[in-house]
Amino acid sequence: MNRVDLHGVAGFRFAAGAAGLKKSGRLDLALIVADKPALCAGVFTTNKVVAAPVQICAPRIRQGRCQAILVNSGNANACTGEQGRQDALRCGAIAAAALGIDEELVAVSSTGVIGAPLPMAKFEEAVPKLAAQLREDHADEVAAAIMTTDSFAKRYAVTGEVDGRPYRILGVAKGAGMIHPNMATMLAFILTDAELEGGFVDTALRQSVDGSFNCITVDRDTSTNDMVLLLASGAAGNAPIAAGSKAAGEFQSLLDEVLLELAKMIVRDGEGATKLVRIEVTGAASDAEARQAACSVATSSLVKTAFFGQDANWGRIIAAVGYSGAQVDPEKVDIRFGEVPVVKDGLGTGKELEAKATEVLKTPEFTVFIDLKQGSGRAYYYTSDLTYDYVKINADYRS
Amino acid sequence: MNRVDLHGVAGFRFAAGAAGLKKSGRLDLALIVADKPALCAGVFTTNKVVAAPVQICAPRIRQGRCQAILVNSGNANACTGEQGRQDALRCGAIAAAALGIDEELVAVSSTGVIGAPLPMAKFEEAVPKLAAQLREDHADEVAAAIMTTDSFAKRYAVTGEVDGRPYRILGVAKGAGMIHPNMATMLAFILTDAELEGGFVDTALRQSVDGSFNCITVDRDTSTNDMVLLLASGAAGNAPIAAGSKAAGEFQSLLDEVLLELAKMIVRDGEGATKLVRIEVTGAASDAEARQAACSVATSSLVKTAFFGQDANWGRIIAAVGYSGAQVDPEKVDIRFGEVPVVKDGLGTGKELEAKATEVLKTPEFTVFIDLKQGSGRAYYYTSDLTYDYVKINADYRS
Repeated sequence: MNRVDLHGVAGFRFAAGAAGLKKSGRLDLALIVADKPALCAGVFTTNKVVAAPVQICAPRIRQGRCQAILVNSGNANACTGEQGRQDALRCGAIAAAALGIDEELVAVSSTGVIGAPLPMAKFEEAVPKLAAQLREDHADEVAAAIMTTDSFAKRYAVTGEVDGRPYRILGVAKGAGMIHPNMATMLAFILTDAELEGGFVDTALRQSVDGSFNCITVDRDTSTNDMVLLLASGAAGNAPIAAGSKAAGEFQSLLDEVLLELAKMIVRDGEGATKLVRIEVTGAASDAEARQAACSVATSSLVKTAFFGQDANWGRIIAAVGYSGAQVDPEKVDIRFGEVPVVKDGLGTGKELEAKATEVLKTPEFTVFIDLKQGSGRAYYYTSDLTYDYVKINADYRS
Repeated sequence: MNRVDLHGVAGFRFAAGAAGLKKSGRLDLALIVADKPALCAGVFTTNKVVAAPVQICAPRIRQGRCQAILVNSGNANACTGEQGRQDALRCGAIAAAALGIDEELVAVSSTGVIGAPLPMAKFEEAVPKLAAQLREDHADEVAAAIMTTDSFAKRYAVTGEVDGRPYRILGVAKGAGMIHPNMATMLAFILTDAELEGGFVDTALRQSVDGSFNCITVDRDTSTNDMVLLLASGAAGNAPIAAGSKAAGEFQSLLDEVLLELAKMIVRDGEGATKLVRIEVTGAASDAEARQAACSVATSSLVKTAFFGQDANWGRIIAAVGYSGAQVDPEKVDIRFGEVPVVKDGLGTGKELEAKATEVLKTPEFTVFIDLKQGSGRAYYYTSDLTYDYVKINADYRS
């Protein structure tokens, strides 16, 4: 359960400022700094067009230790070529110098306008100031500083216990669609004071990402700047949690919760979205096929406009399952909106139940259950509706 | 070139009527009848949820001979189970009896509401009347009778010559998006009086479909009822055109033209569309990868909203290429809007050229050229923009 009273994690300090990267003058630059090098893992965009900060950051994270994250909004430093890489390196160097640490321990991350060079003078000026203002319990400022088109800052924190010692997991994230001039969809930084064994950091993060950020869609577009980092400070003082242990299972569920809740916040804040819809597929031939089917339904423009129209349009859903590539016998498919069955063995259940289902669609959050009756594969996806405001935000942003 | 003065093809007769399947009372039922069994080929939906008429029609067409096409709008006869199949069979039987032909020679096709049973009494009454009203030169009525959300009827006709004998190819099509209550995206019926060799009918159709209906997108959704049929009456009296001959090459180009122009009409008439955009990818590692990249760009909601916003947003295009799966070196990509280069070797060409590109985007039809410089693979895709009206049509159709 979200602990809204938690604004920090032992072993980490935070600072954020307005460096003038956003024309609005809002917070646009942030530092997260660990007291000593933290264990770390990262998951990065699969887009082949990779922004400069990701090119610099990914190999550093793979070394397994990270002490600082420097992140800016307002400029993605993407499609900026060799100059972009030099600028990203320089950002890391400025932070390292200001913090007195090795620059290989600095992760750099950017989100915002694509194709424009980073205004380096602003970094030269602002980063040392931030380094001098680090404070505990200021994670909220970081969450605010990484926002682009987000309408609210995204933070989620939980507590656990191991060896009688309490620990925390706190995550901040941004994302609301891959929108120019704010190109980058999604950043998430997850911090814990639990001591973890080295290998577990990476596997734990990958498993949580798979069930959260990899199961959400606003508009199918994958950004050039996506990045999820997990840093573990070990300040809780527990014996290191090893993969496979009971403590690891508990840590994993908590981490899953933090990432899933952050992911759902991103969909809820999806550009123009008025609905958060869970698409749950069961009875597929395999989990992978369940995911294919769920993804196909969750990304269909016709399904998403029907959600906006509060229309229990199961025809669009069954058609999206049909072209998903998953094994399906149309005459076995069951579909429910919430608890209301609208399709039984591929046939509509009638006007009365369709009217009841419409009531479900009028709520802001609901689940569509799709049972394929082919096997035991299951998966879910979270999606938003496709609305006038989505078009407005993405077509008319200059007005 | 389209011969708008051609309203029929030798060896075929047409009739259309209003059977009461559309609430509007407009034309909703049509017959195309060949004087004698015509050679035929068909391409059908790849959706695993296949409407009853497609289930009945496809195996008949595969036998290679067809004498009549009975097509209705207003009801898709999809997701209707065993009853739907019986109804589709009965439709064919009614037509066969009225025409005095074998029912295996009747192709049945439907488009419209999904999940509702066909009102068979209306077919029993209307089909014999249509069979008594067949006339040459009435292809336009058929084009009108198959419309659902289409805003204009789609017909395209050309003439060719073989052995000094003139022949015609005439196509009618419908499609504007896969929209409930008009579920089925796309139907096309292509007629020619040219005599073709049996094997060539099928290969010619498949090649033309591959370069036309398989290269267009309005909203990525594949319908349960899609169908393209080619019927050759042989009434032109030429020696049969055999695959590989010079005459076959000429016929193929003409057929390609008819299908591509019909396909473009469908995109131009895309739900809510204000633009017809050709995405042309060159320099891919293979033709297949070029197609992947073109499809990714053509189906991106962010790219399509940018077209609507008349915004030369190359960042969204390069990102869509990046996640397409095609091999790409971001620092080699060139992008042009019409003749205006906006990206050279992965870098923007500056504000002045971007402003010029915006002028291109203000025109109703333009091409986006993307050169990946990886090889000699090339492909194109036609797409529409994503607009307020797309959302309106698909979310608010009940209002």
